[in-house]
Amino acid sequence: MIYVIKIGGNIIDDTDKLQKFLEEFGALPYKKILIHGGGKIATSIGDRLNIEAKYIDGRRITDEQTLELVTMVYGGLINKNIVAQLQKNKCNAIGLTGADANIMLAKKREVKEVDYGFAGDINNDGVDSKKILQFLELGLTPVIAPLTHDDNGIMLNTNADTIAQEIAKAIAKINSVSLIYGFEKAGVLKDKDDAESVIKNISITDFDRLVADGIIIEGMIPKISNACNAVKSGVSSVTIGNALQLNDIISGKSGTIIK
Amino acid sequence: MIYVIKIGGNIIDDTDKLQKFLEEFGALPYKKILIHGGGKIATSIGDRLNIEAKYIDGRRITDEQTLELVTMVYGGLINKNIVAQLQKNKCNAIGLTGADANIMLAKKREVKEVDYGFAGDINNDGVDSKKILQFLELGLTPVIAPLTHDDNGIMLNTNADTIAQEIAKAIAKINSVSLIYGFEKAGVLKDKDDAESVIKNISITDFDRLVADGIIIEGMIPKISNACNAVKSGVSSVTIGNALQLNDIISGKSGTIIK
Repeated sequence: MIYVIKIGGNIIDDTDKLQKFLEEFGALPYKKILIHGGGKIATSIGDRLNIEAKYIDGRRITDEQTLELVTMVYGGLINKNIVAQLQKNKCNAIGLTGADANIMLAKKREVKEVDYGFAGDINNDGVDSKKILQFLELGLTPVIAPLTHDDNGIMLNTNADTIAQEIAKAIAKINSVSLIYGFEKAGVLKDKDDAESVIKNISITDFDRLVADGIIIEGMIPKISNACNAVKSGVSSVTIGNALQLNDIISGKSGTIIK
Repeated sequence: MIYVIKIGGNIIDDTDKLQKFLEEFGALPYKKILIHGGGKIATSIGDRLNIEAKYIDGRRITDEQTLELVTMVYGGLINKNIVAQLQKNKCNAIGLTGADANIMLAKKREVKEVDYGFAGDINNDGVDSKKILQFLELGLTPVIAPLTHDDNGIMLNTNADTIAQEIAKAIAKINSVSLIYGFEKAGVLKDKDDAESVIKNISITDFDRLVADGIIIEGMIPKISNACNAVKSGVSSVTIGNALQLNDIISGKSGTIIK
């Protein structure tokens, strides 16, 4: 089994949590791939550079200056610091964007009502899973920044959840793969005010009902919809859980498993 | 023959020159490795971030803020843009720092009279040439940023000329390798005011005499001293020449060859 594990800002922005996560991640005795998102550091460096953050419907618009910012911060600062820390933990990490070894080819999002700028949508068959598996065979642990490229010299900003899903789906065609979305809660909660009310299992056939019943709400809707798609595409399981309980997630003791 | 080719700010800072160089580099029908330096873009982004550039004896001091800056700009912005452009040119590039796949292990420079901050000196046997050759075997072209790591979670700023030399020396132990230092002139000039007065060949035994005679001066002294060291360590040849005449350098028509 290969594990594709995604972490977001709640871990990346917190030095102690990131260190704790990377210790547990680095020690996992499996082939594994880490996908990281951005974090507040991009916003704070953007503020210092006077790059105005523009949003439409809560989604950040990637203008040219923002593309430079995320290429620097996601592909450089965050990615290399994670890689260096994993090396410290004796995990032989290699930091990659979609451009590196051409592992993720994307298209600049078509302008319809909204111009998202340099946002990239991964092509069908745009993930070179064979190359990713070759890195794993060399004993390397890919650490992937949320950046792709268009094969025309342009980097593109791509959502980390989507990257995790697309990589897991591409690997699923040749190898067993589990996808883990690490976030701040222990899983999907039946009652959002009760941290203990984690739903252990969600069947992909339950999804519509859980949305209709108001159990799956807001930001969890696209996350779990993505998870269901991944399962339909052959990913063995998708778990959503607390990134700091990685071993418990893998052993099934923690998190919400979508099957 | 494997070619290790280093480019500096004079190419990196000029979009047209960089594009022209990357077309020629990308099309080279040899196994090849590109080492890139920094450039004015790091200084200009540093200025915008109000990171004060500190120098001692003309060497930049890498304080904590500067380390963040170079990790972002060298490891992210410059490296990924070069990789994306090489992909456009159908050259399957992979961007790396010393932390990635642990290819270059370094020590933070010891504080003697001067505290250079987070400057890294590559360890003896710190270059994992076997891993670099494995990437070449996979059909990949490593594009290496001037950053190393200390195996204790810290990235370090390392001179790109030195990295090029150390990588060439490490590869020389297992494979024939040529090292090319691209710079703004056609080679080492007999008369610095006459661009045509390129010295075709420098024997490593000539070095001391050429320095004493004032032919090799200023910034060329460490460059050519490095080149002589590389030759003494088994690198087949070191050529210093105009990065935009790459094919002519390789065929021996252009540049100063140090043997």
